[in-house]
Amino acid sequence: MAENHGKEEVVERPDDFHIDVPSDDDDNNANINIIEPFKLKAGLSVNSKSSLLILNQEINMPWVTFIKIWNSTSLHVCADGGSNRLLAYINKFANSTHDDDCKKFKPDYIVGDLDSITDKTRKFYSDMKEEVKILLQETQYSTDLMKSLSLINLHFNFHKELINSLKEFDEHDGIEKLNKNLNKNLGFEKLSLIDVYILGGIGGRFDQTIHSINQLYHISSYYHNKLHLTFFNRDFEDLVLLIPKGLNFVKIHKQQIGSKKNAKHNRVVGLLPIGKEVIINTKGLKYDVTNWKSSIDSKVSTNNLIAGDNGFEMECTEDIVINFQIFDNDFA
Amino acid sequence: MAENHGKEEVVERPDDFHIDVPSDDDDNNANINIIEPFKLKAGLSVNSKSSLLILNQEINMPWVTFIKIWNSTSLHVCADGGSNRLLAYINKFANSTHDDDCKKFKPDYIVGDLDSITDKTRKFYSDMKEEVKILLQETQYSTDLMKSLSLINLHFNFHKELINSLKEFDEHDGIEKLNKNLNKNLGFEKLSLIDVYILGGIGGRFDQTIHSINQLYHISSYYHNKLHLTFFNRDFEDLVLLIPKGLNFVKIHKQQIGSKKNAKHNRVVGLLPIGKEVIINTKGLKYDVTNWKSSIDSKVSTNNLIAGDNGFEMECTEDIVINFQIFDNDFA
Repeated sequence: MAENHGKEEVVERPDDFHIDVPSDDDDNNANINIIEPFKLKAGLSVNSKSSLLILNQEINMPWVTFIKIWNSTSLHVCADGGSNRLLAYINKFANSTHDDDCKKFKPDYIVGDLDSITDKTRKFYSDMKEEVKILLQETQYSTDLMKSLSLINLHFNFHKELINSLKEFDEHDGIEKLNKNLNKNLGFEKLSLIDVYILGGIGGRFDQTIHSINQLYHISSYYHNKLHLTFFNRDFEDLVLLIPKGLNFVKIHKQQIGSKKNAKHNRVVGLLPIGKEVIINTKGLKYDVTNWKSSIDSKVSTNNLIAGDNGFEMECTEDIVINFQIFDNDFA
Repeated sequence: MAENHGKEEVVERPDDFHIDVPSDDDDNNANINIIEPFKLKAGLSVNSKSSLLILNQEINMPWVTFIKIWNSTSLHVCADGGSNRLLAYINKFANSTHDDDCKKFKPDYIVGDLDSITDKTRKFYSDMKEEVKILLQETQYSTDLMKSLSLINLHFNFHKELINSLKEFDEHDGIEKLNKNLNKNLGFEKLSLIDVYILGGIGGRFDQTIHSINQLYHISSYYHNKLHLTFFNRDFEDLVLLIPKGLNFVKIHKQQIGSKKNAKHNRVVGLLPIGKEVIINTKGLKYDVTNWKSSIDSKVSTNNLIAGDNGFEMECTEDIVINFQIFDNDFA
């Protein structure tokens, strides 16, 4: 990749552009961070410590996709009213086995200030006793999203301590306090890597969207990049994640064959410097950039496309938000 | 307001909190910028130079609201495929007078690279001849949103020059070139104030949302705050605009009576420092802040509420994005 000084450039690439995946054997690649935004696509839980988190927004995706994502994640959490959305979604696909489905696709935890969960939802999941843990956390100084992420980290990294704490539970902010203490005592470098896939944080009321982006930055920094968040945008059109500063290779399938006359469509990507100004170098995009200074109040690369056959390289001087178009067959 | 140094504080206010509207007669208020996010609510075109711009996203709002917004704006522009959305929306409310409605709610201009407008839409509006001007602007180095905003500025500030230019029209980037030259020659301080209300820029694919925010900053700076953009979020749940740095008073109705047991609901507001770090002072919010340092990768005030009966004061060291919840009766 080019150095971060010198001439600022944009180069237009052909739609097909060969790019090598960095090999593990090459010592030069030791400092390359490999990003796989669609690793759930394989239908396998690549990371056994992976979680699906459902926030309070209508779920809108094909049923087969939902099943695939559910089965590829090992922990399922609803943030407060997310539990209503889960039941409503399953209801939409109700058939003779509806009641079975509701019980099969049950969350492990429901957590939050519980001002949104309806009496009906609460009763339904309460009847499952220990199988669904409903945890009240009253504090208004953190959101249901923040409470859920603390719980997910506790579940995977401090399971014994979490279960013990539930015996004498501080319903104000017990989860976040416990999480903070345990992380600090253990040291962040010893935490396990966790993937969290989130439904419902982006595309609704705009301050909620920005809260999700705020958490994307905060969580990456607080957990020293050990907790990876991927937000599915509403209507499942694209997904949103953070690319850490430094040298990255994004492994991604660039194209799908469209229904119209078998036309090929390249995948849309946006490089979104929401936090601060970033200098970006890429190799493998339709509009590749060199030494490109980007910030929200100057220029931003939106509606770009992936041209590299195996993905693209991206070097950035700060963490940067990125979104990728989802194709119909990505999770089918 | 407090000075921008000293102790950082958050104060919780009661839901009802009296706050005076700055009087025009008081010389001390000369430097206060008055913001009225819901001035269209009155159903009057407060500013005769106001425009409705429809982008390529499904329109989703009550029909009475649409009519009110349409009638309160004097210029109507569709960006490329926005024209399909307009026809589809009117179609949804079709009745015996459907064809009349389609002709009544016709855009003055359709502009863009025209890769999204369907043949059917194009024919429908072409048949209206001079009444609907369809303008091809091919360049891929600016978006349909950017092309539309240049056109709107030309229409209100340089109408004669615009009409003349249409005789020998540069279909690559004629509009933006003309706009740039005329603005520069006239001087930005002499431009008229224009309000643009935009449907469809926020809440869809995330890079498109961020492009809208990028334009919010860019347009405010380029036009020296003479072109005001207000984005209606998808599903009409909230609106998004930019508050300029300095001392502002936001005139806004804080409450509506809910349907449930006549409960009062305070209006949700988010202070969203997407561009850069901002120091904020407010007076009249549920969670008022003093000397509060806010940035997207540290802390952000989302899900705040308006408590002041006439609105609230807000002082900020940089331009800041803000969103306001829309109530059912705001445009009814």
